Amino acid sequence: MYAPPGVRTNPNMAVPDRMRAWVLGDPGQLVFTQKPVPVPSRAEVLVRIDAVAICATDLEVIAHGPPALIRGGLPFNKDWTPGHEYMGTVAALGPGVDEFGIGDRVTVEIHAGCGQCKRCRMGMYTSCLNYGLNYGEVDKGHRANGFTTDGGFAEYAVNNINTLIRIADAMSDEEATLVVTAGTAMYGLTELGGLVAGESVVVIGPGPIGLLGVAVAKALGASPVILTGTREARLQKGLELGADHVVNVTKQDAVEAVRRLVGGKGVDYVIECSGAANAINEAGRMLNRGGKICLAAFPHEPVPVDVAHLVRNNIYVYGIRGEGKSATHRAEAFMRAKRFDATKIHTHTFPLHELPEALRYARDRIEDAIKVVVKTR
Amino acid sequence: MYAPPGVRTNPNMAVPDRMRAWVLGDPGQLVFTQKPVPVPSRAEVLVRIDAVAICATDLEVIAHGPPALIRGGLPFNKDWTPGHEYMGTVAALGPGVDEFGIGDRVTVEIHAGCGQCKRCRMGMYTSCLNYGLNYGEVDKGHRANGFTTDGGFAEYAVNNINTLIRIADAMSDEEATLVVTAGTAMYGLTELGGLVAGESVVVIGPGPIGLLGVAVAKALGASPVILTGTREARLQKGLELGADHVVNVTKQDAVEAVRRLVGGKGVDYVIECSGAANAINEAGRMLNRGGKICLAAFPHEPVPVDVAHLVRNNIYVYGIRGEGKSATHRAEAFMRAKRFDATKIHTHTFPLHELPEALRYARDRIEDAIKVVVKTR
Amino acid sequence: MYAPPGVRTNPNMAVPDRMRAWVLGDPGQLVFTQKPVPVPSRAEVLVRIDAVAICATDLEVIAHGPPALIRGGLPFNKDWTPGHEYMGTVAALGPGVDEFGIGDRVTVEIHAGCGQCKRCRMGMYTSCLNYGLNYGEVDKGHRANGFTTDGGFAEYAVNNINTLIRIADAMSDEEATLVVTAGTAMYGLTELGGLVAGESVVVIGPGPIGLLGVAVAKALGASPVILTGTREARLQKGLELGADHVVNVTKQDAVEAVRRLVGGKGVDYVIECSGAANAINEAGRMLNRGGKICLAAFPHEPVPVDVAHLVRNNIYVYGIRGEGKSATHRAEAFMRAKRFDATKIHTHTFPLHELPEALRYARDRIEDAIKVVVKTR
Amino acid sequence: MYAPPGVRTNPNMAVPDRMRAWVLGDPGQLVFTQKPVPVPSRAEVLVRIDAVAICATDLEVIAHGPPALIRGGLPFNKDWTPGHEYMGTVAALGPGVDEFGIGDRVTVEIHAGCGQCKRCRMGMYTSCLNYGLNYGEVDKGHRANGFTTDGGFAEYAVNNINTLIRIADAMSDEEATLVVTAGTAMYGLTELGGLVAGESVVVIGPGPIGLLGVAVAKALGASPVILTGTREARLQKGLELGADHVVNVTKQDAVEAVRRLVGGKGVDYVIECSGAANAINEAGRMLNRGGKICLAAFPHEPVPVDVAHLVRNNIYVYGIRGEGKSATHRAEAFMRAKRFDATKIHTHTFPLHELPEALRYARDRIEDAIKVVVKTR
Repeated sequence: MYAPPGVRTNPNMAVPDRMRAWVLGDPGQLVFTQKPVPVPSRAEVLVRIDAVAICATDLEVIAHGPPALIRGGLPFNKDWTPGHEYMGTVAALGPGVDEFGIGDRVTVEIHAGCGQCKRCRMGMYTSCLNYGLNYGEVDKGHRANGFTTDGGFAEYAVNNINTLIRIADAMSDEEATLVVTAGTAMYGLTELGGLVAGESVVVIGPGPIGLLGVAVAKALGASPVILTGTREARLQKGLELGADHVVNVTKQDAVEAVRRLVGGKGVDYVIECSGAANAINEAGRMLNRGGKICLAAFPHEPVPVDVAHLVRNNIYVYGIRGEGKSATHRAEAFMRAKRFDATKIHTHTFPLHELPEALRYARDRIEDAIKVVVKTR
Repeated sequence: MYAPPGVRTNPNMAVPDRMRAWVLGDPGQLVFTQKPVPVPSRAEVLVRIDAVAICATDLEVIAHGPPALIRGGLPFNKDWTPGHEYMGTVAALGPGVDEFGIGDRVTVEIHAGCGQCKRCRMGMYTSCLNYGLNYGEVDKGHRANGFTTDGGFAEYAVNNINTLIRIADAMSDEEATLVVTAGTAMYGLTELGGLVAGESVVVIGPGPIGLLGVAVAKALGASPVILTGTREARLQKGLELGADHVVNVTKQDAVEAVRRLVGGKGVDYVIECSGAANAINEAGRMLNRGGKICLAAFPHEPVPVDVAHLVRNNIYVYGIRGEGKSATHRAEAFMRAKRFDATKIHTHTFPLHELPEALRYARDRIEDAIKVVVKTR
Repeated sequence: MYAPPGVRTNPNMAVPDRMRAWVLGDPGQLVFTQKPVPVPSRAEVLVRIDAVAICATDLEVIAHGPPALIRGGLPFNKDWTPGHEYMGTVAALGPGVDEFGIGDRVTVEIHAGCGQCKRCRMGMYTSCLNYGLNYGEVDKGHRANGFTTDGGFAEYAVNNINTLIRIADAMSDEEATLVVTAGTAMYGLTELGGLVAGESVVVIGPGPIGLLGVAVAKALGASPVILTGTREARLQKGLELGADHVVNVTKQDAVEAVRRLVGGKGVDYVIECSGAANAINEAGRMLNRGGKICLAAFPHEPVPVDVAHLVRNNIYVYGIRGEGKSATHRAEAFMRAKRFDATKIHTHTFPLHELPEALRYARDRIEDAIKVVVKTR
Repeated sequence: MYAPPGVRTNPNMAVPDRMRAWVLGDPGQLVFTQKPVPVPSRAEVLVRIDAVAICATDLEVIAHGPPALIRGGLPFNKDWTPGHEYMGTVAALGPGVDEFGIGDRVTVEIHAGCGQCKRCRMGMYTSCLNYGLNYGEVDKGHRANGFTTDGGFAEYAVNNINTLIRIADAMSDEEATLVVTAGTAMYGLTELGGLVAGESVVVIGPGPIGLLGVAVAKALGASPVILTGTREARLQKGLELGADHVVNVTKQDAVEAVRRLVGGKGVDYVIECSGAANAINEAGRMLNRGGKICLAAFPHEPVPVDVAHLVRNNIYVYGIRGEGKSATHRAEAFMRAKRFDATKIHTHTFPLHELPEALRYARDRIEDAIKVVVKTR
């Protein structure tokens, strides 16, 4: 029986002592195993995971480890569980937690900052200067679910309450896994200023963030919203999610097409979600003077950038990683109000024990997979 | 006698009908000639130019034309006068102007926006969408002194009152020509957030903007301020202007030196004033997570940029051109209060008729020239 | 034939030389008369007025004159036309205007700043320091339609292009007159931060701004939005426009009801649109620590304010007058996208020559009048 | 011997088990007693208090209890120690703390937020929604030194590291106690926008915050800075701290005097530090359109406020309590750089055991006392 000291549980929602979980062995190697159910501390809860979506970053983490340093030998310590786009039900409360109750349905964002560093004190918790320092002797309390802590490809996970977003009863488990993706797009638009109603926005790259970027931009009233990409099926999804125009860059020059669509002076904002080598330069040439670029993706190698164009045109570039400034809460509010249907990007579902197959679908885009969701129950 | 209809003059400050002025012939060719004294319209004044500093951009404009498009055949119409870092005395008032009086000493910033476009309505007048449209049939009222209008290598110039900054009686003509340079640094720091007291700032490149960037950052309380560059004499100037540390990058690795100076987590802000090919990458590696880069200079060709590093570390990059958000007024306030001595970067003075020699000193850095000032009286 | 020099007209849209217009005689006295059709200057167009809504401020202006000083004897010079919530069709273009074409349907916001003062340079054109200075010897170019310039209770009006908002073809004339009302609410929410999705908002006072404040807050994703007021019919309108809850303050204590609805910690924002004497104090007690109040209305006499409560709770109070920061454009974008139906507050329509009757309906709320619209065609 | 488990100490800085401390009995009653030296937890240190200044709020707290609710019977539980403007030396480290070392000299700000509530996640830690919840069953981790936790009229105090500011070696103990006062003024100016160089600022009320408000405004480049008050000696201090002008309101009308000093259009900012009944109205009339008021003091009873004036002039009012947004760090940076001499407001010093006498001097302004400092060593 799971009953750690100081932790509140509820007989209506019994928690086992051990759980099924995928753990990462050597790079690329996932093993389905049993682990103890983890124990929430102060300001933490135990979440029973009900569903978890697969993000392209999961594929990278599984193959290479997380993008930022983690102390203590993670992730390749053969006991670590990846997965960060999960949702579930609060199953136990750490000491003193009264912000949530057992049985509350929640979805999660990735980052809880340390709360002590300069960035956290500014509210920039995704830029926590103690990133990764939440293990062993240097525990500063930072958490990045599924990056620096155990994640969601398991039956249970501990979460700092800062990473929880309450969801509407009417929202399905699958839809709830998409809140953090929409939240990332919302964060990008937040950093661009947020007041985009009636402003022109280009989204480059119709991956999950790009597609929900279209949806979020439209929810915020942006107009026109133009989506550029290479695959017709994806562009079609963009139209379903509200894009005013799509541009297939295999058929037309992206910059010319965009400038023609908006007339003379270029667009106000570009959200770059493709990671293509030339995307930042194309974004710059799509923009008007004083325009802004959000980089939500990136090429893995250095690429030639026309810096002169950016400077001469007073263009600002915002590199964002994740979903800061409580943007997931704003995304959830729009989803709750049915402003857009994020489930349009959910294409496949697998049970937890078929995670490797789910990952294969996501990685190889089998049957045009966009978002693949793993159901843990 | 200069007495255009609707323009107020003052017998104590007689204005001739014609004036001496340098005009640009073919690229690179300057001719000293006579032109009519220009006439101020609504919201404009006539400035008698008393001194004008030479900016690296002047050298480019004279050699190649201004960086952004100008309609109507400028600048190579053989009648156009370059020069934008000038100061002087108000000599005549356009219709309705009462914000300034004849005899007022002023220095100038470059840009007056059109006042009608989206960017001007937002207060972003240096990003005016009608840039360059102030001649002939498409006069939208935008002005960039010495870029899209006649500039300061002459005895008189017309200025929109938005470009004027009143100066203290105690400020010399030479010092006043440096306000716009300090204002550019101030604008950069403004866009980075402005509240930099106690925060760490690196300035890359000890040119005029970089050196005054050090001075302005210190005036705003930044600490430490670290200046990097290649020439000892310039770095020494940086120390005189308040730099806490200087790094000679011919002797040490800039990134390593900076990180060692501030300990662990990197600096908060980098102001890049060198235009060096690798500067943006080095800036990125000097910064902590959530840090910011202001680009006040740029390489002329595309350069390889490690975009992934920027995105993974939530770094924002601000390309700035000029001196927006009334930053020159704030720079002048600090100079008026003697918070720093901008004249430390003033090295040479020439009379107006020796402009070509002055330009040669500036271009070839003869006798270690930093700021070369041309006195018109 | 109307053909002023420098003004472009179009034979398809002939403009007469003279027009019908209401002018203000002594306080409270309106006279229906004929006046010359006015002539647009640089950056101005002539608008043929198609419809104009009546605002409570019109009633005040007609009775007492505008709230801020106007030079030159206005408004009681017996030739001045009030009315500021108008829309229409561009009928002639001032010199150099190419931003609009003849035949374009537009609605208007009130303020065009002078473009030269400190506030205008910051983008704060509704706080122009040259307010009212657009006549005679001190013409600084500021315009407040229907306050400091001739307004919309006439067949034509001249407008600075800064005050024009293009409207969708599908938007009716009547709906278009409501854009500036929605824009005022949008401006208030903008100043409160703008990113209100999922945040709690109370609107005090179900007048036109309050009701559209509910609609705009919901469009921006706020939740819950609570409307308080005294009249059931108005509160019912609030529900139709999206309010999550309404509180009839004749039946319950407003503060208690609000705090009960949101649980423990109070709401994030209050938009005060009632002008009631105790509204600011009630607003303060509805808020959580760090909450914000927008004052879009005000009592005419000084009222007792519990300043200590505001300071102890880090509450900020934003007095707004009008519709700055291009908020009308954002309001129009949401109306264009059918996010809310502003016409729900349009209750009555009169022809131009029945303006006094229309004013009577608006003032005395005859037949529960909310917005009364005058059609000029 | 003080050696709590998990806490690091240093033999060079031995800590006793018990300490001398003043505790609050019934309202107004202070008792000098012995208490155990408290024990720092995670993210906390033990500070040996070297000096503590007396704030007017201390007098109120001692007389009436703190301004906001505290759970658990504080402050009148007869064991609680007031005092919040203290500085000292780090004497022991809680588990995992490596941000500070034993022997570091520090001064403190008041608030550490809970880190979990909406406001803390936004960086608004002084508006923590869990204010006061740091005792017993509802410990959310919020701390307000000397308000909701034990304070500084003692030999030792525990501090969350978020409340610590490292001080320069050259700064005296007495000067260091003034950092938080300067920080409060800095916070006010931060909330007003922070970029005040060359802008006009009025400070109403030459108490400690007002006087250092003058100094901080000048350090940030504001000009002119005008101080208004009733006592010549205090106004004289204002001139010594950099005020460009002072206005004795017993001799002239404050509003008229200010408007005359700045000419026509009023000032940009007012920092109200007097708590006078009519101060907010006078502030409103001193300001230009779009100006801003920071309320750093308040009358204890509701006062008549001309709300209409605020709204008609687009004036914003910022109620601030304390020293948020890391403003103390910026204040310390300016003090470290010797931009102003805060010790000019330090008038008297007493040893710890004479606290009642020190309080009497502060309360009754004996010998013109401004800041009275208690030395604990």
